[in-house]
Amino acid sequence: MDHWQIQELIINALKEDMPFGDQTTELLIPEGILGRAFFLAKEDLVVCGQPVVEAVFKLLDQDVKVEWTVPEGEEVKAGTKFGYVTGTVRSLLQGERVSLNFLQHLSGIATKVRRMTKKIEGTKTLLLDTRKTLPGLKVLQKYAVRVGGGTNHRFSLSDGILIKDNHIKALGGLKQVLEKLKRSPTLLKVEIEVKTFEELLIVLQSDAQVDIVMLDNFSYEDIKRALELIRVYKPQIKVEISGGIREDNIEQFAELGVDFISSGAITHSVKAVDISMKIERVWERGD
Amino acid sequence: MDHWQIQELIINALKEDMPFGDQTTELLIPEGILGRAFFLAKEDLVVCGQPVVEAVFKLLDQDVKVEWTVPEGEEVKAGTKFGYVTGTVRSLLQGERVSLNFLQHLSGIATKVRRMTKKIEGTKTLLLDTRKTLPGLKVLQKYAVRVGGGTNHRFSLSDGILIKDNHIKALGGLKQVLEKLKRSPTLLKVEIEVKTFEELLIVLQSDAQVDIVMLDNFSYEDIKRALELIRVYKPQIKVEISGGIREDNIEQFAELGVDFISSGAITHSVKAVDISMKIERVWERGD
Amino acid sequence: MDHWQIQELIINALKEDMPFGDQTTELLIPEGILGRAFFLAKEDLVVCGQPVVEAVFKLLDQDVKVEWTVPEGEEVKAGTKFGYVTGTVRSLLQGERVSLNFLQHLSGIATKVRRMTKKIEGTKTLLLDTRKTLPGLKVLQKYAVRVGGGTNHRFSLSDGILIKDNHIKALGGLKQVLEKLKRSPTLLKVEIEVKTFEELLIVLQSDAQVDIVMLDNFSYEDIKRALELIRVYKPQIKVEISGGIREDNIEQFAELGVDFISSGAITHSVKAVDISMKIERVWERGD
Amino acid sequence: MDHWQIQELIINALKEDMPFGDQTTELLIPEGILGRAFFLAKEDLVVCGQPVVEAVFKLLDQDVKVEWTVPEGEEVKAGTKFGYVTGTVRSLLQGERVSLNFLQHLSGIATKVRRMTKKIEGTKTLLLDTRKTLPGLKVLQKYAVRVGGGTNHRFSLSDGILIKDNHIKALGGLKQVLEKLKRSPTLLKVEIEVKTFEELLIVLQSDAQVDIVMLDNFSYEDIKRALELIRVYKPQIKVEISGGIREDNIEQFAELGVDFISSGAITHSVKAVDISMKIERVWERGD
Amino acid sequence: MDHWQIQELIINALKEDMPFGDQTTELLIPEGILGRAFFLAKEDLVVCGQPVVEAVFKLLDQDVKVEWTVPEGEEVKAGTKFGYVTGTVRSLLQGERVSLNFLQHLSGIATKVRRMTKKIEGTKTLLLDTRKTLPGLKVLQKYAVRVGGGTNHRFSLSDGILIKDNHIKALGGLKQVLEKLKRSPTLLKVEIEVKTFEELLIVLQSDAQVDIVMLDNFSYEDIKRALELIRVYKPQIKVEISGGIREDNIEQFAELGVDFISSGAITHSVKAVDISMKIERVWERGD
Amino acid sequence: MDHWQIQELIINALKEDMPFGDQTTELLIPEGILGRAFFLAKEDLVVCGQPVVEAVFKLLDQDVKVEWTVPEGEEVKAGTKFGYVTGTVRSLLQGERVSLNFLQHLSGIATKVRRMTKKIEGTKTLLLDTRKTLPGLKVLQKYAVRVGGGTNHRFSLSDGILIKDNHIKALGGLKQVLEKLKRSPTLLKVEIEVKTFEELLIVLQSDAQVDIVMLDNFSYEDIKRALELIRVYKPQIKVEISGGIREDNIEQFAELGVDFISSGAITHSVKAVDISMKIERVWERGD
Repeated sequence: MDHWQIQELIINALKEDMPFGDQTTELLIPEGILGRAFFLAKEDLVVCGQPVVEAVFKLLDQDVKVEWTVPEGEEVKAGTKFGYVTGTVRSLLQGERVSLNFLQHLSGIATKVRRMTKKIEGTKTLLLDTRKTLPGLKVLQKYAVRVGGGTNHRFSLSDGILIKDNHIKALGGLKQVLEKLKRSPTLLKVEIEVKTFEELLIVLQSDAQVDIVMLDNFSYEDIKRALELIRVYKPQIKVEISGGIREDNIEQFAELGVDFISSGAITHSVKAVDISMKIERVWERGD
Repeated sequence: MDHWQIQELIINALKEDMPFGDQTTELLIPEGILGRAFFLAKEDLVVCGQPVVEAVFKLLDQDVKVEWTVPEGEEVKAGTKFGYVTGTVRSLLQGERVSLNFLQHLSGIATKVRRMTKKIEGTKTLLLDTRKTLPGLKVLQKYAVRVGGGTNHRFSLSDGILIKDNHIKALGGLKQVLEKLKRSPTLLKVEIEVKTFEELLIVLQSDAQVDIVMLDNFSYEDIKRALELIRVYKPQIKVEISGGIREDNIEQFAELGVDFISSGAITHSVKAVDISMKIERVWERGD
Repeated sequence: MDHWQIQELIINALKEDMPFGDQTTELLIPEGILGRAFFLAKEDLVVCGQPVVEAVFKLLDQDVKVEWTVPEGEEVKAGTKFGYVTGTVRSLLQGERVSLNFLQHLSGIATKVRRMTKKIEGTKTLLLDTRKTLPGLKVLQKYAVRVGGGTNHRFSLSDGILIKDNHIKALGGLKQVLEKLKRSPTLLKVEIEVKTFEELLIVLQSDAQVDIVMLDNFSYEDIKRALELIRVYKPQIKVEISGGIREDNIEQFAELGVDFISSGAITHSVKAVDISMKIERVWERGD
Repeated sequence: MDHWQIQELIINALKEDMPFGDQTTELLIPEGILGRAFFLAKEDLVVCGQPVVEAVFKLLDQDVKVEWTVPEGEEVKAGTKFGYVTGTVRSLLQGERVSLNFLQHLSGIATKVRRMTKKIEGTKTLLLDTRKTLPGLKVLQKYAVRVGGGTNHRFSLSDGILIKDNHIKALGGLKQVLEKLKRSPTLLKVEIEVKTFEELLIVLQSDAQVDIVMLDNFSYEDIKRALELIRVYKPQIKVEISGGIREDNIEQFAELGVDFISSGAITHSVKAVDISMKIERVWERGD
Repeated sequence: MDHWQIQELIINALKEDMPFGDQTTELLIPEGILGRAFFLAKEDLVVCGQPVVEAVFKLLDQDVKVEWTVPEGEEVKAGTKFGYVTGTVRSLLQGERVSLNFLQHLSGIATKVRRMTKKIEGTKTLLLDTRKTLPGLKVLQKYAVRVGGGTNHRFSLSDGILIKDNHIKALGGLKQVLEKLKRSPTLLKVEIEVKTFEELLIVLQSDAQVDIVMLDNFSYEDIKRALELIRVYKPQIKVEISGGIREDNIEQFAELGVDFISSGAITHSVKAVDISMKIERVWERGD
Repeated sequence: MDHWQIQELIINALKEDMPFGDQTTELLIPEGILGRAFFLAKEDLVVCGQPVVEAVFKLLDQDVKVEWTVPEGEEVKAGTKFGYVTGTVRSLLQGERVSLNFLQHLSGIATKVRRMTKKIEGTKTLLLDTRKTLPGLKVLQKYAVRVGGGTNHRFSLSDGILIKDNHIKALGGLKQVLEKLKRSPTLLKVEIEVKTFEELLIVLQSDAQVDIVMLDNFSYEDIKRALELIRVYKPQIKVEISGGIREDNIEQFAELGVDFISSGAITHSVKAVDISMKIERVWERGD
């Protein structure tokens, strides 16, 4: 995640939070007061979003200094002061909320993903995200997934072939899709989502090139059976499962030996983690 | 929420989901196939985001037609088909995910807010949002709060004076803040956040002009006591409470007679509601 | 007024003044010539726009140095050299006109506002601006009003309720407006514009919450009488007057004891003050 | 002036006047009320800005209809209703101020320019504008000058060579400039500003190619004498005068036979003309 | 290629060709004159860019009508009038050059690609483009390659793994790269560029997952020998060749049985085809 | 060519080449590896685009250092290493292709123009470019023409009057055009394109003000004859020729004594020159 890529996003975030300046600060806080504030984890969390916070303050005020006591992606306990911001109090206050909005959201993603990926450590299974991201925030959300320990599935409609129920409906059936696929060369990986054993068998018996099969909303038992079938017919095909997998059962699914578990919730239903920014000391310029 | 205001946001959402076209669709779906899809509520929800969905498809393809069976803001039951999209299958598929990403998020907010505001119906209390919004999505999130039945607190740092702990810290104490405030004319409403009874009393005994006092993280009993104090000292001041208020206890707090209950979670920790878009029929152009 | 907020405006100003470079400079001025120019006040004025001029030259050429002999908002006499720009002559010449266009306009506003606010010094009256600003320049114009000593009225339609003749017409009368208002909670200040004593009395006798009343185009005598009425009925309401108030009579109106005098002319009919930028010395790089 | 050229400018104007919607309208005005408003000239003026007003309302709301009773550029008397806007009252109110801000400014320019060009009708003299335009508004201001009857001087630094005092200072003297010019081919017209007779003579005696000479701040008598000199030395050279020319003396200067009179004030010190928009009738959708 | 995707590009193209209007047209051509012009192929070519031309004129003037006598991608002979534009002559002239600049460039690409792909028709070889595209024009250039009959290689650094000499240098050798690759899971296809037989053998003998091998600048004989090696070691790997392949020898290389031939020249060194736009008839509005 | 002018173009180029990061680099290259790469001329060429390359790397990563061994515009032989880039290997690899895409294209233009202008050195003829530029790249292409030694013709429709066949057709004939022209004052240079001797004579015999005549597609002999005619009738008029002039015959045409030779091909049909960027050394941060 590079500065050039998020600069416009951050300017928009600042504009939307301050179209005509910070009225409270301008009313009350003299320009010459400097201060130092810390970021405080109010629950256990994985820190994510440091480059964004740095970019927010840099855009607001070149002279603000941001320092971190832990690296990006580190787990910290509730009560940890994990970063410091030093500069004019006006700039600290103007950047506080926008910084926290980014930081709480991205750390929320990374924290959740970390908990899930820890459960499947040691298995061959990777936790994938999806295209179910919040509009305008995709680059950042996918970044937070990686920081958390997850793996990015395709970024967009432009970088992977993924055939789903609506494609099958549009072409009149899975067989028609596979026929079409055989005649259509592509340099991208091809994945097909199946909802039943019948569909799975059609895919496995076809000679169309399919790299990944996604078992959509299969039960635990059905996934087990599906994996056996796949091993028999097309052992080289990768297997993704999706639907109904949560923090409390992911381990069990991973132990079945699937290649990928994907989750929309890690980006579309993010719970912000609790972080606050507290000014700890102020002084006048020149002191 | 007007078209001119969200057009850039939607173009960015489309670009981020399709920087180089929809490879699956271009590989498989012939241009001449038309279809009709419906939006299906997979849980009980309040529909929110119709103008955004219309704008997404209009930008993608002027000829796509979007129709709704219920008005914006309506509650629908799981299983309801609440909207239809008709056009080329390519356009339907290209707009599907971006539409759903907006719709599931905004309906998620509206649904949550509706459940909370229903609980306080009949009381004088209003449910407010905060500035804890997702960067770039503020206009839409605040719109969804209104659709859900909530009331918008200030939109940004530019349209309300809200004095919080960091301001007090920066000026060396609440009394200093109130002194400064008395000498600083403003045409905006003034709100002060207090964390203790001591702070509350300082506010109540000051002759600085304060329109709203926010009791931050006060317990139920303390709010009760605070309201009595306020009635004695400054009955015209409005009272906002914040912290620890959830769907399951909001009613109880409202019945205390506070003016406003504010919640960051309704915008910073949104659970998407489950909606899918299903193609139900396809035909060839000219049929 | 922050750099991130005006950067796009300045880039647009440069693009519109130099879509394909400065042909005169490229034809005549060698790259290696450095120079120093000063800004010269050709009439008495209040300097306003220093951060904009700095941003213009910084965008044009990082190595240009801008220095001021007086702070922003200072009054200078005709003949004063109040700032210096040092860098390549090419950069000086390319930034000259855009800088002056900003500086003459903003100083024009600040100068006019300063003259008016000086006349009402010592009274309780504040001079307000309006939404009658030049498109695209609102942030800067409102900034110049503050530098001049004025106070900003609402910035936009989003941060204040202001009810005017067209709202009254649309709802069928002032009484209907006030009835509607009573049922419509808002966290913003409410102001109503009245054109007659009849309207004023309706407002004063209503129990709708109104924070400010604006007497639109009332004569001196009528304002006097209106203030008495207001003192009787609603002493806590603030009073704004508008229309027909100029530099030569503002003092007289302020002495009546109104809270606010607003003027559209200070932003919609700005007379630029006369400033020029003169190169005083040139030398070759390395000298 | 084309729609594609001003669309971004208008979206910015709307965003700056309504970053989070029109709070007054949303509080008070029901969505279903339609209305018709007129634009009223409150002084004699030349109407300018019709395409901008149309674009403002079109962007706000495709269904608003704008009609004019006089064509762009027409002079109307105080009291004339020269245009009508029909649509939802919400849209009328949201577009009112932005429309008027454009209309009053552009008509202000056109009105002033019309009065000045009328005075020099019948002479060969053209009234020119300058690069002293308000940042971001150059395309529109130069358009208003044309509508008023004036002629555009160069648009930017990219489309004309204009040598002024700072260029002369940078190169060490006018002779050096002319020498340099002789060796520097250009496809653009070349104009030189002179401040004294000495400078004028140097230009007239040089064999550098100069298309226009600008007499900067010459007195009436000096212009007369300069014209005679020019007729003797270089009759084909065009003559522009600048400085001290106002509506009340422009005729006299034009009669001297100069080719161009340029004025910065027509764009940098615009007095808005007085126009209001009044709702004259409202009705409910379906009536 | 969709309208929303190219709108900004076209507005930029218009702004860069007309920052302050079309001076010739405004000087000479009355507003009320309508006309009809045709696009004339002045050499044999494949038409490409119709949607762009339509978008150019639509942005300039909603009332201009564009019609085509052949579909996009069709080959036409020199002398063919393949499209017509009808509207005001001013709009035709303003859109002429920008339209042609797009049309001649994109048709230039499509024409070249068509000639090359025709030569390899019937073989299994696909002609690929590269990332050697002109900045800002990638979406359009890649579209023209498809129209010409070519296949798009990866669009960007985000949608394919392609390991080249600089990666190998950075990691200290090809073996190190392959070791790293084995430990690095990806959902994208993996391609490796080799420059020698030694490198090829390392790839073929590695058990890292490689989907495509690119033989960079191999001679005809060496490609032949490489293909045999690949058939022996890893028959499932796809083979791309690059370097030194031109229209006059592509057939010969394709017959060797490679999967892909890639060419940078088809996008980085485009020869525009000769097309002009000629007004054939004019009339006055109302005729 | 200034940084503010190309920043947006470069960000777009980076976004289009890396919408979601560089997957290969992130997969394989550790963050802490630094390196140094050189730009290698693989054919004789004129270096052009140094400021663009610097801006690309600066935007990507402030810490990358770019150094040149020759100045912009210098001719280098095949095999020359003419520039060095030092920084993290990740940044080098991410900026490689975008840099080269600019550098190869701009140097391609400059190289071609240099070869052509060298042939006409010593004559009075200037080589001009045209408006036949690639959309979005005009500022850069025109810059490369200047670097190569050519002269820019008008930049856009806004900065020169150029009357061509379509204008003549629209007004019903060349005589009508010249009549119109006489009544239409302009401050821009006027050029007319003629296709026949008949047209040329009409221009020469008219008393309309024409600064340049362009002989469109005249043969060598006809140009000779035309020049004689022009010398007789209007010796002060400048002469431009266009059409059929290539590197191998430009000298011969220049010797005829024309003022300008214009070429569309130098910008619309650019052959990229062959440059590569090679990493020559890598080390770990701290070494």
